[in-house]
Amino acid sequence: MVRPVALTLNAGSSSLKFSLYDIAQGPAEPTLMAVGQVDSIGGKPKLKATLSPASPAITRELTASEASNHTSALATALGVLRTQYPEARACVVGHRVVHGGPHFSAPVVVTEAVMNEMRDLSPFAPIHQPHNLAGIEAAQAAFPEALQVACFDTAFHRAHPKVNDTFALPREYYDKGVRRYGFHGLSYEYITGELKTIAPLLHDGRVVVAHLGNGASMCAILGGRSVASTMGFTALDGLPMGTRCGQIDPGVIFYMVQQEGKTIDEVRDLFYYKSGLLGMSGISNDMRTLEAADVPEAHEAIDYFVFRIRRELGGLAAALGGLDALIFCGGIGENSRKIRRRICEGMSWIGLELDHDQNDVSARVISTEFSRARIMVIPTNEELVIARACKSLLARQHAQAAE
Amino acid sequence: MVRPVALTLNAGSSSLKFSLYDIAQGPAEPTLMAVGQVDSIGGKPKLKATLSPASPAITRELTASEASNHTSALATALGVLRTQYPEARACVVGHRVVHGGPHFSAPVVVTEAVMNEMRDLSPFAPIHQPHNLAGIEAAQAAFPEALQVACFDTAFHRAHPKVNDTFALPREYYDKGVRRYGFHGLSYEYITGELKTIAPLLHDGRVVVAHLGNGASMCAILGGRSVASTMGFTALDGLPMGTRCGQIDPGVIFYMVQQEGKTIDEVRDLFYYKSGLLGMSGISNDMRTLEAADVPEAHEAIDYFVFRIRRELGGLAAALGGLDALIFCGGIGENSRKIRRRICEGMSWIGLELDHDQNDVSARVISTEFSRARIMVIPTNEELVIARACKSLLARQHAQAAE
Repeated sequence: MVRPVALTLNAGSSSLKFSLYDIAQGPAEPTLMAVGQVDSIGGKPKLKATLSPASPAITRELTASEASNHTSALATALGVLRTQYPEARACVVGHRVVHGGPHFSAPVVVTEAVMNEMRDLSPFAPIHQPHNLAGIEAAQAAFPEALQVACFDTAFHRAHPKVNDTFALPREYYDKGVRRYGFHGLSYEYITGELKTIAPLLHDGRVVVAHLGNGASMCAILGGRSVASTMGFTALDGLPMGTRCGQIDPGVIFYMVQQEGKTIDEVRDLFYYKSGLLGMSGISNDMRTLEAADVPEAHEAIDYFVFRIRRELGGLAAALGGLDALIFCGGIGENSRKIRRRICEGMSWIGLELDHDQNDVSARVISTEFSRARIMVIPTNEELVIARACKSLLARQHAQAAE
Repeated sequence: MVRPVALTLNAGSSSLKFSLYDIAQGPAEPTLMAVGQVDSIGGKPKLKATLSPASPAITRELTASEASNHTSALATALGVLRTQYPEARACVVGHRVVHGGPHFSAPVVVTEAVMNEMRDLSPFAPIHQPHNLAGIEAAQAAFPEALQVACFDTAFHRAHPKVNDTFALPREYYDKGVRRYGFHGLSYEYITGELKTIAPLLHDGRVVVAHLGNGASMCAILGGRSVASTMGFTALDGLPMGTRCGQIDPGVIFYMVQQEGKTIDEVRDLFYYKSGLLGMSGISNDMRTLEAADVPEAHEAIDYFVFRIRRELGGLAAALGGLDALIFCGGIGENSRKIRRRICEGMSWIGLELDHDQNDVSARVISTEFSRARIMVIPTNEELVIARACKSLLARQHAQAAE
């Protein structure tokens, strides 16, 4: 018997992340079967994968032609998956798409019209969106019969009140789509869902989620809905990240172009790829490396990262009218007890009191018994959110076909 | 007997504000004698002045040649002042200078070396600094014997900890001077001084000052010293203003240049002169006009202005580890009870409880008796800070000459 599975894809500029989920019928959650990624597409590509929950991770150097672009990278990944799961049939492919613009507020089945709308949004995310769409095209070619589902990083934030959706620009820019979209929506949706299960009353309250990874943002969530985020029009604003600068005075760009003679492309590359933790430290974009490096430059980068998070926490609490819970997720949020400790130090004014023992073991609740607001660590799972959307949209289509 | 007076000058792109202070010897405060401004320099200039505390304001249309540039505008202003005070002798002229760079942390006597240093800072504030320096040159020509004193809008912020002084850019940019300077320092210095007199214990605590005028910023002050500000490298960042956008995603600039084909000069002009309250409302840059205009566009601009102030208040409180006092100043902060009310609404989570009756009469203390943190209104006086610097540096020079 053919086993119905969902394939999820996250196509970056030179990488393709994939996972395979069992989406047997019924109310059960999708179950992870395999996960992996192809890196350095178009260069010296490499594949890493864990082909079943029980098996060890494998790593394989690929030839240039095995991953010269997203299409061949996908074919290579599928070849590996088929060896492990010959009976599996990807009847639905879910795609992470960075930009859903002002209108997409939920996952959608990709039609020709949807594809065109997503293409029209590329100017808003020229570095990410075209690669996401290349991933969809590769999957359409590989699985012409499968349902293609687009899941947007912006969708979770679409209900922002206008004050958190606009910039103070002439009005036509809002209408043109120059808005504070916010990103990491799949992660925030996952965390919000978990919180609803774990602590429904907290879920209904004033929550800030700090998604701290190589990309990083924070989201103010009221009653399960996003009301504000540190990221705005692009994935560049807000917190400093591995290589991105985060919040910056626009005057810095005018200075670099008008006084230093840089081109706008050079400034953009500087802000996206040479700034953040890497730029400040001069050492690395990886927080683990910086935490291990006992030099002033690394300390300064970490200090700045922590400080901006604390400052944004105050700002987002203001958007919520106070704070009931702070939740950490993402690679740094889930794993660095030191960063969590430093973010929460001296934050009793906002109701946060860290339990150091619980924090040291990355427990689910890491605030003290007497802390006015809860502090939690919840590992995020963006792929599962995509797999759930795949399962649900597939079921909806089957139901419509049966009518 | 010749009466020793200080002239203060604030030279903008097409305006020259001036005031005359009696700086009689001894510990007494400088006393305001006259105040005025020349507007539309180089266009159809106009002079407004109040020539003594008791006399009514006068307005006079000027001929083009009476104020074709800062030099002639100053000569015209001085002519009017001399008619009123023939015995006065400007032995010191104090200048507001927008940018003091990383090194000027206090007012200084203008020497040739200082003048060169200030010129070198022009690339950091190309819209303002050259006009400030033109004002100094005009005053040097008019009063070759007088002491010229430069007072910097950045000086009050020079002790910012590094996390509030840097951006997450490659390290060489900090060394080059691309830092979070902060502005409105003369206003914050005045308010801090007043607070020390009125309420010394509060002065030693955690204070946020909201300077809300046509330009607007907020400053976090701990024990009388600035630790953070909403303005950064230029006077463009932070709060939305009359015509300036305030905080914006740098990606918006990349979008406007790369996707819309705007030049960087067009984007800069848009951000400085066509955004903020004017851009959002499409009506006016003047809060009084917007408050009177009962249309959705005006409401949205006010909503955004209020919201960004609330959000920054949370962020600055985080920089301070909580809040003991919020102080309003500037044209909007001193006069709009409605804006103050809306900023303080629902802010009990941060310790603020507004006394509506006291707020309605713009009393000095407008928080309730039981408010954990104080809310105050203190009219600012940047000119007096300049006049004090004039008096003090003149006295120092006399003392040195006497040695």
